[in-house]
Amino acid sequence: MEAKKANIFSPNSLGQNVNPDLDIERKNISFSIERLTNILDGGPNNTKLRREVEAVLEADPEFSQENQYFQSQNERYESAVRKTVYLSQKMAKMGWIEDGPEQLYCYKFLAEDLAFNIHVVFMKSILALGTDEQINKWIPLAKKFFIIGTYAQTELGHGSNLRGLETTATFDVATQEFILNTPTFSAMKWWPGDLGRTATHAVVFAQLYLKGHCYGMHPFIVQIRSLRDHSPSQGITLGDIGPKMGFENVDNGFLILKNVRVPRENMLAKFSQVLPDGQYKKQGSEKINYLTMIVVRVNILQSSIIPCLMKACTIAIRYSVVRRQSELKPGDPEVKILDYQTQQQKLFPQLATAYAFHFTCNYLLETFHRCYNQTQEGKFDLLPELHALAAGIKVITTDYCSAGVEVCRRACGGHGYSLLSGLPSIYVKVVPSCTYEGENTVLLLQTARFLVKCYGMAQMGQPLPSSVAYFSSVNFGKCQAQEEKDFLNPDIYTDAYKHRAFRLIRNAAMKLQQLVQAGKTQHEAWNQCTVQLTRAAMAHSHYIVVQKFTEELKNHAKESAIQRVLKNLCDLFALHGIFSNAGDFMQDAYFSTEQIDRVTETYLDLLAVIRRDAVPLVDAFDFSDACLNSALGSYDGHVYQRLYEWAKKSPTNHQVRRISGIAITIELALRLV
Amino acid sequence: MEAKKANIFSPNSLGQNVNPDLDIERKNISFSIERLTNILDGGPNNTKLRREVEAVLEADPEFSQENQYFQSQNERYESAVRKTVYLSQKMAKMGWIEDGPEQLYCYKFLAEDLAFNIHVVFMKSILALGTDEQINKWIPLAKKFFIIGTYAQTELGHGSNLRGLETTATFDVATQEFILNTPTFSAMKWWPGDLGRTATHAVVFAQLYLKGHCYGMHPFIVQIRSLRDHSPSQGITLGDIGPKMGFENVDNGFLILKNVRVPRENMLAKFSQVLPDGQYKKQGSEKINYLTMIVVRVNILQSSIIPCLMKACTIAIRYSVVRRQSELKPGDPEVKILDYQTQQQKLFPQLATAYAFHFTCNYLLETFHRCYNQTQEGKFDLLPELHALAAGIKVITTDYCSAGVEVCRRACGGHGYSLLSGLPSIYVKVVPSCTYEGENTVLLLQTARFLVKCYGMAQMGQPLPSSVAYFSSVNFGKCQAQEEKDFLNPDIYTDAYKHRAFRLIRNAAMKLQQLVQAGKTQHEAWNQCTVQLTRAAMAHSHYIVVQKFTEELKNHAKESAIQRVLKNLCDLFALHGIFSNAGDFMQDAYFSTEQIDRVTETYLDLLAVIRRDAVPLVDAFDFSDACLNSALGSYDGHVYQRLYEWAKKSPTNHQVRRISGIAITIELALRLV
Repeated sequence: MEAKKANIFSPNSLGQNVNPDLDIERKNISFSIERLTNILDGGPNNTKLRREVEAVLEADPEFSQENQYFQSQNERYESAVRKTVYLSQKMAKMGWIEDGPEQLYCYKFLAEDLAFNIHVVFMKSILALGTDEQINKWIPLAKKFFIIGTYAQTELGHGSNLRGLETTATFDVATQEFILNTPTFSAMKWWPGDLGRTATHAVVFAQLYLKGHCYGMHPFIVQIRSLRDHSPSQGITLGDIGPKMGFENVDNGFLILKNVRVPRENMLAKFSQVLPDGQYKKQGSEKINYLTMIVVRVNILQSSIIPCLMKACTIAIRYSVVRRQSELKPGDPEVKILDYQTQQQKLFPQLATAYAFHFTCNYLLETFHRCYNQTQEGKFDLLPELHALAAGIKVITTDYCSAGVEVCRRACGGHGYSLLSGLPSIYVKVVPSCTYEGENTVLLLQTARFLVKCYGMAQMGQPLPSSVAYFSSVNFGKCQAQEEKDFLNPDIYTDAYKHRAFRLIRNAAMKLQQLVQAGKTQHEAWNQCTVQLTRAAMAHSHYIVVQKFTEELKNHAKESAIQRVLKNLCDLFALHGIFSNAGDFMQDAYFSTEQIDRVTETYLDLLAVIRRDAVPLVDAFDFSDACLNSALGSYDGHVYQRLYEWAKKSPTNHQVRRISGIAITIELALRLV
Repeated sequence: MEAKKANIFSPNSLGQNVNPDLDIERKNISFSIERLTNILDGGPNNTKLRREVEAVLEADPEFSQENQYFQSQNERYESAVRKTVYLSQKMAKMGWIEDGPEQLYCYKFLAEDLAFNIHVVFMKSILALGTDEQINKWIPLAKKFFIIGTYAQTELGHGSNLRGLETTATFDVATQEFILNTPTFSAMKWWPGDLGRTATHAVVFAQLYLKGHCYGMHPFIVQIRSLRDHSPSQGITLGDIGPKMGFENVDNGFLILKNVRVPRENMLAKFSQVLPDGQYKKQGSEKINYLTMIVVRVNILQSSIIPCLMKACTIAIRYSVVRRQSELKPGDPEVKILDYQTQQQKLFPQLATAYAFHFTCNYLLETFHRCYNQTQEGKFDLLPELHALAAGIKVITTDYCSAGVEVCRRACGGHGYSLLSGLPSIYVKVVPSCTYEGENTVLLLQTARFLVKCYGMAQMGQPLPSSVAYFSSVNFGKCQAQEEKDFLNPDIYTDAYKHRAFRLIRNAAMKLQQLVQAGKTQHEAWNQCTVQLTRAAMAHSHYIVVQKFTEELKNHAKESAIQRVLKNLCDLFALHGIFSNAGDFMQDAYFSTEQIDRVTETYLDLLAVIRRDAVPLVDAFDFSDACLNSALGSYDGHVYQRLYEWAKKSPTNHQVRRISGIAITIELALRLV
């Protein structure tokens, strides 16, 4: 054991070799890490391209994230602006096209180090909501950064309920202008990224008023700052909303409009127009945009949220085979903490969850592309199901990933609180996803509404959308599994998840019906069922994830080693879910006490099985050290040396120490003596 | 509804009146808030004194926390040093004695704004471990801040397992000195507060070596910085460990010792001594210190950890009656979000939890004082039970408070991510308590070891310690409750918690026994049961909390209004626990599916009952606005105005805006055009 410890006063050994405690975990691996990486990337060509892109970024000192943890919010913001502009140039130089795969890999790699994310949303909203004329006018300016845009929708008092937005846009026929106003405190635009310091223009969402009549929310392009000296435009008050948990690279801002006039042609008019005489004209259907928006959401899950959990697992699992603490048997050397069952129980379910969500997102993306093709033929009937599905998967993914990252962080003990571990930054990146792009409780209730409707259809014997087709194949008896091997049968546990989801949906639907029959109004009854409805929607989403993971296993029938490790993870994900929600599964005695005890034992035994593959399974995520940016999680496992080397760089250690010491001493002396 | 909204351009109305949406919640209150505050404070005199102290601190601009959220780590540290020194003076001026009740209220109020916390630990360790001679030498110097101390125990590679610490202290008979060394990277002292920049001296824990033989861990006083210019002493390398999640006011540091010599009399020698000839001599028992340390831990829970959850509840619940979002019934005005069942289900269990833990800590403190008196008579047999009890309560309290604060934060939607909400700071304050003062998993296993031992004693019919006396009164039949009112009977749910805890303890103990009988070694068997053992210890602690809360109700038999609201909270805490852990309660069919459904309905009905008392119940915590320091949680409920007013103060909004704008524009122009 002593051999692994470098003498503290010897030259720095970082990067020269791998910590033997980590190295040994990579001996005699039971499957091909490279093959698993290829599967996660969607093919070997993707792996190759991704690595090429990452190599270019890592070789360029402009993209270094080395001192990120020591930077102030202001420095983070300025660095993000600089890097984003530089990335534009770099991409042009490399011949990487916009919206191409290389760009995706760049964004995945640099993520929180980039700015102008909402500038991109600004452009996308013009492309989606503007006429060809408007697109031709604004997009070239935005692409060249002659103008910088933001997307000003959310208000201080309104997030989830867009119809409640209060900003107004009143058409003045005389001047052919819209007059935009912020009528109340709660109406001020609040949170938009790039607004606090950067943007010159905004797509502002406001209630359209024509001749005293409100036509609902519409988008308007408004210039908010001077292109000459960046001062606020006439009638505009704006600024930064102050410090936040995370988002340090972003200048989230506020915006107040007082009689701000924009010409008639600044209303984005692809779907509705105001004619010169103040008449309102609707045209076309926005449904197709809606679908595009959902795809964007799923892409965020796969490129940004699930990788957070993958990174956290990589850091925590590598650290847990380097960290040794206490002995299992008195007199023995200290044990790797990953050999403790309690540590395995913290980390391995997170590892299985990361894999489970990755494959579920693949399925969602396929489904969307199928649906998209249908909409091109004018068929929109799959939309409600897709919305319900995507909403539910968004919630379970963001919720589990956030909780999972925090479990990983806390599993690293004290060092998990150091920013140098990388884990606190991952947490503050992942957790806002529970709130943005649809608040999770709100989304779950949308999924629940769809499920209740489908339950009604099932009762009437109508054909069911495919994601809820299982309603008609639920086993209402009891689970037949007895032995450990039965519980490792995907059919057995998938059936259990079906039963659980369906029973929760049925219970909520029946309670709803009973309350209405007992005289409650529809909305009162709904509100009194919402806790149960959200649980039902979560259980349904959980079933989908388990089911999709089991289907993924079939894709690897010809590569037994890969199939075996994936099946271990799938089993673990499923059994951990039963172990953690046993009450749901014991309803109607579907599982007996003895069966639940057996599930628990099977689940705990699986932890020991996954133990030997744990490091290879996180290595397969293939994060470079630069991408992880973690003193605990690097490939070489030199945890303590790296913590020390990095801590020494802290600006606190380069202040004029003596002066600060003297200052304290003098101050104390003067005040106390 | 419109009336409540101030015109945005009207003069600032903060503090002039209460937001009507919050005001109405305080009409027709069903109990005396003041009386409940007195109960929480431990009597009206305490309430009075606390308010007097807080009024003094609030009136003094030196203690303002106003700009805290905009400060850098460095500014937070310097402000903390300044405030701590100033507080010393202030206390002297006010005639508030050290360790008196006023000081406690000061620390509770100023908390994260103070420095030298570990300097206090430094002094306490000398008082506890030093001889009278050592105390007389060092304590007066430390009290007057002539020296500033830190407590250097934790190492880079060792936290929980103190016996594994690697720092060495070798006695040199020739010079009568100890030679201290950091032999490896992992042996460097890491994390001690006040070490990074402040301390001049440290109590260093090191393995004592005498004539080549190791005598285990001992404490040594080591000077680490010059008293003249604050430069590191000979052989000392030290610095700040870099940025952390939270603890911004503290300079956690590292320390490397290379042949640092201290005189023989610098080993703290109350319990063991090294004689001039290098002989080792033990004397007295350290047990009494151990007990004092436990009391300190419980005090932290009550004065620092539980108030975090109370503050988070105050902020989230007040905000939830001001925030309106969407309508329940189409066409109606938007609804207060606290009227949604899903929001109640997030917040009210946290509220009940805060009350539950408060009363449990009262019980723990009473028990400790009883035990302390016994130890004064030389009786130490209650210590193992107390340790197990305190460890379990520490874990459940820190774990639930951390999770609860995060639930409250996320329940505030987007604004919960703003530092101005106060909630992110509360989270980073509360969550480290899961790791410090005994890592939670490690502590749970200590409790579990005690429980398994007691289970064995129960099997052999031996008398049981009082906290586990329930082992002999568990109802092994089924729960007899049928109607809603049955489930609101404390005897019914306390019995259910008993059954759950005992069954989990018994299962774990039996599995342990079986594994050993099947040939596993004791340590292998133990490791394979640890997941179940931690669950058992958690269930036991959960039972204790429920039971102590029900006992508290009896103290208020003569004040029915207070008793009623406390019983509602107690019922909610207990039923929420069953609802959330239904599987445990359904084992052995103790609860049937129908009974669990009834528990769920009873629990959900209780949410609506607590709804009307929600604001008064958080008002009773009696946090002043200055103490909450939250734009969302202030007493007057002017949430949006306050967010805006505070955001405007952000330094980002006072930078030279035009220059920054021009800089961006020029940069972009140069690079892209």
